[in-house]
Amino acid sequence: MSPKELAQKAKEASFVSASLSTEKKNRILSRLKNLIESEKSYILQENQKDLEEAQKIGLSKSLIERMKVDEKVLREMTSSIGDVLSLPDPVGEITKMWRRPNGLLVGRMRIPIGVIFVIYESRPNVTVEAFSLCLKSGNAVILKGGSEALNSNRALYTLIRRSLSEEGVSPEIVQMVDTQDRNYIYQLLELDELIDLVIPRGGEELIRTVVEKSKIPVLKHYKGVCHIFVDESADLSMAYEICLNAKVQKPATCNAMETLLVHENIAQVFLPEMEKRFSQYGVRLKGCEKTRKILKMVEPADESDWYTEYLDLILSIRVVTDIEEAIAHIKRYGSNHTDAIITRDYERAWKFLREVNSSLVLVNASTRLNDGFQLGLGAEMGISTTRIHAFGPMGLEELTVTKFVAFGNGQLRY
Amino acid sequence: MSPKELAQKAKEASFVSASLSTEKKNRILSRLKNLIESEKSYILQENQKDLEEAQKIGLSKSLIERMKVDEKVLREMTSSIGDVLSLPDPVGEITKMWRRPNGLLVGRMRIPIGVIFVIYESRPNVTVEAFSLCLKSGNAVILKGGSEALNSNRALYTLIRRSLSEEGVSPEIVQMVDTQDRNYIYQLLELDELIDLVIPRGGEELIRTVVEKSKIPVLKHYKGVCHIFVDESADLSMAYEICLNAKVQKPATCNAMETLLVHENIAQVFLPEMEKRFSQYGVRLKGCEKTRKILKMVEPADESDWYTEYLDLILSIRVVTDIEEAIAHIKRYGSNHTDAIITRDYERAWKFLREVNSSLVLVNASTRLNDGFQLGLGAEMGISTTRIHAFGPMGLEELTVTKFVAFGNGQLRY
Repeated sequence: MSPKELAQKAKEASFVSASLSTEKKNRILSRLKNLIESEKSYILQENQKDLEEAQKIGLSKSLIERMKVDEKVLREMTSSIGDVLSLPDPVGEITKMWRRPNGLLVGRMRIPIGVIFVIYESRPNVTVEAFSLCLKSGNAVILKGGSEALNSNRALYTLIRRSLSEEGVSPEIVQMVDTQDRNYIYQLLELDELIDLVIPRGGEELIRTVVEKSKIPVLKHYKGVCHIFVDESADLSMAYEICLNAKVQKPATCNAMETLLVHENIAQVFLPEMEKRFSQYGVRLKGCEKTRKILKMVEPADESDWYTEYLDLILSIRVVTDIEEAIAHIKRYGSNHTDAIITRDYERAWKFLREVNSSLVLVNASTRLNDGFQLGLGAEMGISTTRIHAFGPMGLEELTVTKFVAFGNGQLRY
Repeated sequence: MSPKELAQKAKEASFVSASLSTEKKNRILSRLKNLIESEKSYILQENQKDLEEAQKIGLSKSLIERMKVDEKVLREMTSSIGDVLSLPDPVGEITKMWRRPNGLLVGRMRIPIGVIFVIYESRPNVTVEAFSLCLKSGNAVILKGGSEALNSNRALYTLIRRSLSEEGVSPEIVQMVDTQDRNYIYQLLELDELIDLVIPRGGEELIRTVVEKSKIPVLKHYKGVCHIFVDESADLSMAYEICLNAKVQKPATCNAMETLLVHENIAQVFLPEMEKRFSQYGVRLKGCEKTRKILKMVEPADESDWYTEYLDLILSIRVVTDIEEAIAHIKRYGSNHTDAIITRDYERAWKFLREVNSSLVLVNASTRLNDGFQLGLGAEMGISTTRIHAFGPMGLEELTVTKFVAFGNGQLRY
């Protein structure tokens, strides 16, 4: 099937998915959940093929770990379907309605975006998560997973299509790109009249390539260089807890803290105590000159460190003279992802909230809270740092757009 | 200045524009309004240079008409500034706020998008309109007008920068691309980390080129092929009025009706009467076979007519057997712009509203109402048919995005 034919199929199917009732969508999800449970030996067997191939060609251990499907991963899959199942259906919601002087009643109604192209890497879970979210929000979806997980993704794709067919719904709602030919993907990325949105999930290189090649709007985030600024007025015991949580609770995630900014008036007190706690968790510290006057053993941080997303137990530290310097640092080196201030000062809390325009800005809480579930949006498709449409976690609402609707009784334009 | 330097300047200035108070923004707009009035002889003189050049190189009469600035156009400019001045400032609005079980208060706050690149053709008014809307919504803006209006745009750009400087605000908030080198524009369109959004306003070719070249998200509409479906249950006298208004009130606009769909059960009665009215306004009709059995003198419409945006006093007509056929026609040939149904039937009104996913869907009102002012949004940057971010008229709110804000007292992730 040519890229155009595949996209055309998805486009036609998107009219079907857009008009499915909530009940029907939930029945499909529920059926898929059951199928994943009843057909788990099939999934594991197909995944085994991928794992063997991966070992044969010598893929890294961490990559193999990511693509592995076991009982735990299967439970995560079915539980993520359950999460989406229990979320309210965003389609058809009237978000606002007002009456014009001529009597025309105008409103905004949520509708699906149309066809969403999701490009991702090794984790086969994403196949199930992306489908569930796109289906519930009434979209058709084109899936392109990592080549290393091809057999696993094919198996899941087969089950997804079965769950649709068995509910009497066109399986064309979901399409899978089943080729390793990069040109095929590049051609899909040209089809801006058939595909409405591209969401790449993966490393910076993947995302840059997609942005480079795509004529279709892309929602993405390149990296999360997240900051916490500990103000001089901070409650220090709270600051220790939050900074520790933001760095060590799961360091490989995009919302983990990468740079700590400390007000110089408390650095003398705060840093040595903080260092003790970090060292218990094996965090390697890098610091500016002022930091290194207080923490003598810390390695120097250079300019490139301020731009770096370590995704590891490494942290850069900078002592700043005031909140202005902290905000200027974030504007210069930050990635618009997640930034927090720890303070007891009312003015500074608001100043930070107003002036730092990252996808989530927090006062007195951990950056790790930038997540669909933590913020109360439910399951999400990733966190966007693109400053249009969806800035922050992309939940079901972010997979919709609003159209205007108008109820008239003969209104004309004069 | 290289494209990168220019975009860098705009990016830095966007932090300034983002934090301007509403009062300050309104004072700048008010000053610009006064400057346009007091410096009108300068503007007219610069415009004259463009007009002379245009005549010399033999530009079309309609193009020259579009780029001409006279007293009336100047009044339109100042009045458009006044419109923006009186609109509420969207920046800082908290659109929603909720409390999480752990006590974290989470909200969504409107912020500017950042740097917006507006590319447009001949009308110098757009220079003023685009600046006013971007300033009021806290964005920095890069302007690229048509080369044929270069002197006029330079004059307006100079006045805009004066209005900023005289209010003590960095004039770098507005940048103008002052070169005819296409590569300069293409290079700007690569800078997705400095420019956040591109809005091309103009013909289909301009827009296609921008989409082709841009790594930055683009909000656009290619064309408006708008439909009215006159159902068998329609109030016919209302249908005559609405169809006439939608076709003849301003045929060169994107929200004018291009195709009329008529239920076969009323075609015999409706079409001859409608034809009479259209003929009074010189509308040229093209019809399907069924139409031509009723209106014998009408030219045949072929497949390509259904896709055509005439932007003129020409209309294609198709007789359909039911609402399903009407909706299928719109899905196939429509452009997601504006579509209306005329009906007295409750079920069909809702079916049409639900199933037609254009940027504005109307019941019993004219397609010409798809406009920021008509819908009550105020001044707008054009009508987007891109199904993300802003679908329909792009008013001030559509030039913002929401960030998440969170007020905590020590919340961590577990």
